[in-house]
Amino acid sequence: MRAVILHAPGDIRVEEVATSTIVEATDAVIRVTASCICGSDLWPYRGISPVNGPSPMGHEYVGVVEQIGADVRSIAVGDLVVGSFIASDNTCEICEAGYQSRCVHQVSMGGIGTQSEYARVPLADGTLVRVPGTPTPEQARSLLAASDVLGTGWFAAVAAEAGPGKTVAVVGDGAVGLLGILAAKHLGAERIIAMSRHEDRQALARRFGATDIVEERGDDGVAKVKELTDGLGAHSTIEAVGTQESMMQAIHSTRPGGHVGFVGVSHGVTIDGLGLFISSVHLHGGPAPVRRFLPELIDLIMTDQIDPGAVFDLTLPLDEAAEGYRAMDERRATKVLLTP
Amino acid sequence: MRAVILHAPGDIRVEEVATSTIVEATDAVIRVTASCICGSDLWPYRGISPVNGPSPMGHEYVGVVEQIGADVRSIAVGDLVVGSFIASDNTCEICEAGYQSRCVHQVSMGGIGTQSEYARVPLADGTLVRVPGTPTPEQARSLLAASDVLGTGWFAAVAAEAGPGKTVAVVGDGAVGLLGILAAKHLGAERIIAMSRHEDRQALARRFGATDIVEERGDDGVAKVKELTDGLGAHSTIEAVGTQESMMQAIHSTRPGGHVGFVGVSHGVTIDGLGLFISSVHLHGGPAPVRRFLPELIDLIMTDQIDPGAVFDLTLPLDEAAEGYRAMDERRATKVLLTP
Repeated sequence: MRAVILHAPGDIRVEEVATSTIVEATDAVIRVTASCICGSDLWPYRGISPVNGPSPMGHEYVGVVEQIGADVRSIAVGDLVVGSFIASDNTCEICEAGYQSRCVHQVSMGGIGTQSEYARVPLADGTLVRVPGTPTPEQARSLLAASDVLGTGWFAAVAAEAGPGKTVAVVGDGAVGLLGILAAKHLGAERIIAMSRHEDRQALARRFGATDIVEERGDDGVAKVKELTDGLGAHSTIEAVGTQESMMQAIHSTRPGGHVGFVGVSHGVTIDGLGLFISSVHLHGGPAPVRRFLPELIDLIMTDQIDPGAVFDLTLPLDEAAEGYRAMDERRATKVLLTP
Repeated sequence: MRAVILHAPGDIRVEEVATSTIVEATDAVIRVTASCICGSDLWPYRGISPVNGPSPMGHEYVGVVEQIGADVRSIAVGDLVVGSFIASDNTCEICEAGYQSRCVHQVSMGGIGTQSEYARVPLADGTLVRVPGTPTPEQARSLLAASDVLGTGWFAAVAAEAGPGKTVAVVGDGAVGLLGILAAKHLGAERIIAMSRHEDRQALARRFGATDIVEERGDDGVAKVKELTDGLGAHSTIEAVGTQESMMQAIHSTRPGGHVGFVGVSHGVTIDGLGLFISSVHLHGGPAPVRRFLPELIDLIMTDQIDPGAVFDLTLPLDEAAEGYRAMDERRATKVLLTP
């Protein structure tokens, strides 16, 4: 089968590799009908995270089940399925508490790779959620978004306790930040301040529910959020970047007692303990337990209540993945969908 | 009046100073019937926090109202009152959300000093809570504890979401940590793991509700907590020290999705963003909004449902404050009460 392999920073190739097979009795193999390129794929692509030899890429996927292991019970061959970037048993105590991304048996799909024709999905019963009916092309895109960026933005909004009466600030206008806006809107937030300086992303932010746009960053951005909130700061802030500046911008934009939901994978971030103490915010984040939200998100998508697939602004065949990486790296695209 | 003044690290003197008077129309002046020495008073005493010239000390107090300003409505001369270490209006949006320690008009009682015969209390209507009836000597001690250490331990337990079915780990066996145990017990925690290596404090921990004692610290302490929790970690962890080691011990002792309530004033603590991201814990803390809990705590004390005053293991007259500081510094006392 064909699969996207990163050989070195900037060196993306689509190569012929061994076709996915069942390894454990709890595995499924899916034919990937759509995958995509994640903001976090750019970290190794840009050489910011180390690249240790040729690495399969991708961890977002929608697909049709091709084979199942002997122990798989709830998923059948032919099912259209969505899963998260972390395979999880969905039965351990951590999963039951809603933290499937930290399942005691977790397997990273990123280590397997889903930017490929087929993919092995461990712990298939726990990981995969069946899609009822046949999605329209728009719904299919949205289902792919549910696999990571939507689920991650949703978790960020939940972690930030976005809800009725709340003012939510969103740091980061990539796909996750934009879908954090969509989630905050769905959760009933009264006011949503998108922090963005890109016109096309501002437009999508407004479409998803942003009521205010702040173009300033860092301390200036914080000052602007305070100005919009009687000097107090937002009740809820979503951090969807992962840099020192974005994390500080998120914490400082939040009022005492408010909530910061952070989902940008931290790169070189250090948080001063005394600063956090004085801020009196709630801080919660990490790899999003997307599996927690998948059934609800699939339902919202299949009933056309949300349209997260709108974040995909470039669709390419798998064979042109290298161009997809370049487009995201150069910010010519927000989110690239790869078709088989 | 006499007041405790810190002149330099280790140099505590009881001196004659100008008697407290009303400055603002919203002030009250109280005759301090009991004050005490806080673990945080030891930071400047030990020279870890800077001492900028002679400083009045103390921020915990029970007292009788002597005078009120023209605008004070809810407190009368002769009332027995308790207040927090932060004076607050209790009406601003931040106070109303329960974060009185970050009131938009907050005044630090530590800057005024309460280890003295009298004390000026700003924003008296918002800050002071009247005690109904006449407390027994035991109740009076407990009311003093409510002013800070009990209220702070309570906030830590609430921030850590201690409650029914939860296993709570407590890092720090000072007065705040011990009263965090009492709070966790009152909130219904199923299991409470006290991390302590001092026999007398272990005994008090058990009296307050600890079910397990872990003597190990750092990574060894974390391993022990995991051993007691099926390898998962505590649901809720109270951090009541404020050092790098204690903060890491608290975060690492907590399971993914669990809650860390941190109330130790951070000294030189830095939190690695990626480590926090991967831990997937909730982190919340800061200067405790004691005022939020005071009415409930006073009720629990005056009806003998809790006995937090048991943390006081040394009582000295104000004039012997220097000996009180030495006793706490040398760990001969957990918590020192000062009588006029």
